[in-house]
Amino acid sequence: MRKRIGERTLLFRSEPRVRSAAAIVAKNEDNGAFQGTFDTVLEDDKFGEDSFEKAECKMFRTAALLACQKAGLDPDGIHAMLAGDLLNQLITANYAARDLGIPFLGLYGACSTMAESLLLGGVLSDGGYCSPVLCCASSHFSTAERQYRFPLEMGTTAPPTAQRTVTGAGALLLSTQDVPLPVFSHVALTAATIGRVVDLGITDMNNMGAAMAPACCDTILAHLDDTGSDIADYDLIVSGDLGTFGSEMLLNLAKKYDLELVGRYLDCGASIYLKEQGFSCGGSGAGCSAVVLAAELLERIERGDVNRMLFLATGALMSPTSGMQGESIPGIAHAVVLERRD
Amino acid sequence: MRKRIGERTLLFRSEPRVRSAAAIVAKNEDNGAFQGTFDTVLEDDKFGEDSFEKAECKMFRTAALLACQKAGLDPDGIHAMLAGDLLNQLITANYAARDLGIPFLGLYGACSTMAESLLLGGVLSDGGYCSPVLCCASSHFSTAERQYRFPLEMGTTAPPTAQRTVTGAGALLLSTQDVPLPVFSHVALTAATIGRVVDLGITDMNNMGAAMAPACCDTILAHLDDTGSDIADYDLIVSGDLGTFGSEMLLNLAKKYDLELVGRYLDCGASIYLKEQGFSCGGSGAGCSAVVLAAELLERIERGDVNRMLFLATGALMSPTSGMQGESIPGIAHAVVLERRD
Repeated sequence: MRKRIGERTLLFRSEPRVRSAAAIVAKNEDNGAFQGTFDTVLEDDKFGEDSFEKAECKMFRTAALLACQKAGLDPDGIHAMLAGDLLNQLITANYAARDLGIPFLGLYGACSTMAESLLLGGVLSDGGYCSPVLCCASSHFSTAERQYRFPLEMGTTAPPTAQRTVTGAGALLLSTQDVPLPVFSHVALTAATIGRVVDLGITDMNNMGAAMAPACCDTILAHLDDTGSDIADYDLIVSGDLGTFGSEMLLNLAKKYDLELVGRYLDCGASIYLKEQGFSCGGSGAGCSAVVLAAELLERIERGDVNRMLFLATGALMSPTSGMQGESIPGIAHAVVLERRD
Repeated sequence: MRKRIGERTLLFRSEPRVRSAAAIVAKNEDNGAFQGTFDTVLEDDKFGEDSFEKAECKMFRTAALLACQKAGLDPDGIHAMLAGDLLNQLITANYAARDLGIPFLGLYGACSTMAESLLLGGVLSDGGYCSPVLCCASSHFSTAERQYRFPLEMGTTAPPTAQRTVTGAGALLLSTQDVPLPVFSHVALTAATIGRVVDLGITDMNNMGAAMAPACCDTILAHLDDTGSDIADYDLIVSGDLGTFGSEMLLNLAKKYDLELVGRYLDCGASIYLKEQGFSCGGSGAGCSAVVLAAELLERIERGDVNRMLFLATGALMSPTSGMQGESIPGIAHAVVLERRD
């Protein structure tokens, strides 16, 4: 085995670069903590389409195309797209892949999708199989509510632990070769850790953070163990969408293993909205960590504010059908390491 | 680029081997053309569980475990599982991954899942990132009908173009190293071709074969073009579940490109049931090509009856939601090459 260094961690020795990224969100997201960093902000949540599902697909397609255009590439020059979303049968990613014509590998990891796509994109490009590749994820508040919870028309109020599904799509272009117009010159993908499905028996569909925090902790531990590294080796540990409640759970869980994350930790879900926006525990959805990574975090690495980041996207594998059959909600977290290189 | 030889085809130079496989089906499937080849046949479709969904999960888990056991490996020794199923949120694969504890990458490719998992499993093992890996797919007639069509209790009759979702789960163990008890010694995974989402505008949910045949033809053409090979270089071209109607469409489509598949072609869906079983156009579902490959086709290679096989699993990306919004049903087909090696 050439590159596997631990049970679950893969090293990317050729260090594929993130060459460009694009993020598109709705107004609520742009009114939050990362205002002004996004490429496009929707005027209305339907994006000129006649259904929220079609709007999400157009968002996805727009972000994917923009990531190509920014890098000076045509979609025809992309060798594979690895992507997913929260909707049944991945209708967002699938219809977008049809319209874009790029060879497509559909992934389902719920809100862990952005890291799963970067992990597999890293393997495909680092291994010399495909490059450039596009890694994308999206979610939409209105399509997710309809599918997972209640029709918006019911006006159901959110309980205190609830998180709001982010309306947004993020796309990253990963390549081992140069591209005509690189947006980033210093962002390298150097390793990844595959998640395990972890289930501590949470059954509350309005408390996804609690379902995901144990999986996130499990992957951090595996990553440190596999690589023989320490929390202090990372400037920033990012989790996807644990929200304020789930983040607190993660910090407490980590402490039990003598890991002090405070001071070097950011949760995309807990950070994306401002407190005064009143979205309970923050944001969630596959698009949440995707847009925060694409719009904000890559820039921090490019600028040199962050030199080494462990990016964990966390997924709650919530199924209305399984829930009704008494099953609990398992979580999963995949991780990738993004590092600054000169 | 070391291994990419065409726009969509990847070569696996280390030729990872399929070391073992397991297939589990229900009675209808065992009463068909491949009777007696399956490892386990369900006595009842609920497999002792209290829901069909839990039965499908148990089937999946059983097949995955059996593939490990046959090879003399413990699930703890498996470095990654790449798998999916037809159910929303991949509840079959996800809950099975939870129970097995194997690092897990969830895939959604509808009925193309078996080839997608072998493609990515090939990349992970050939690239030296993870080995051994488990590649699995499953489907269940009763869970699929409930989710995609009508509750069984309605007793809806199937139109002539309909296919029956196969109740079955298949698992293949892929490894670049030796295993303690190899079931197969001669089956190598040598290449793969990534599918594109192709849509010719089919909107009939009971005619999945027609939705998938164009994607299947597209991938065959890309594969031959990328590799500079000819149909005659393959003893057997296998499609997943086009069914009798879709297979005929594929043969006709292929002819337009001067490709004569007759005489070296098998569709798992069209072959799995006997005509007298009365299942219209044959079988379908992610489990269909998975169990036929695991139970029958690998043996043909091992025995030397087939030396080089192009295995295409075909997925119809059917969504009830998109269907109601007037969208057509796109298809996708991923391909892998399995070859006999001494």
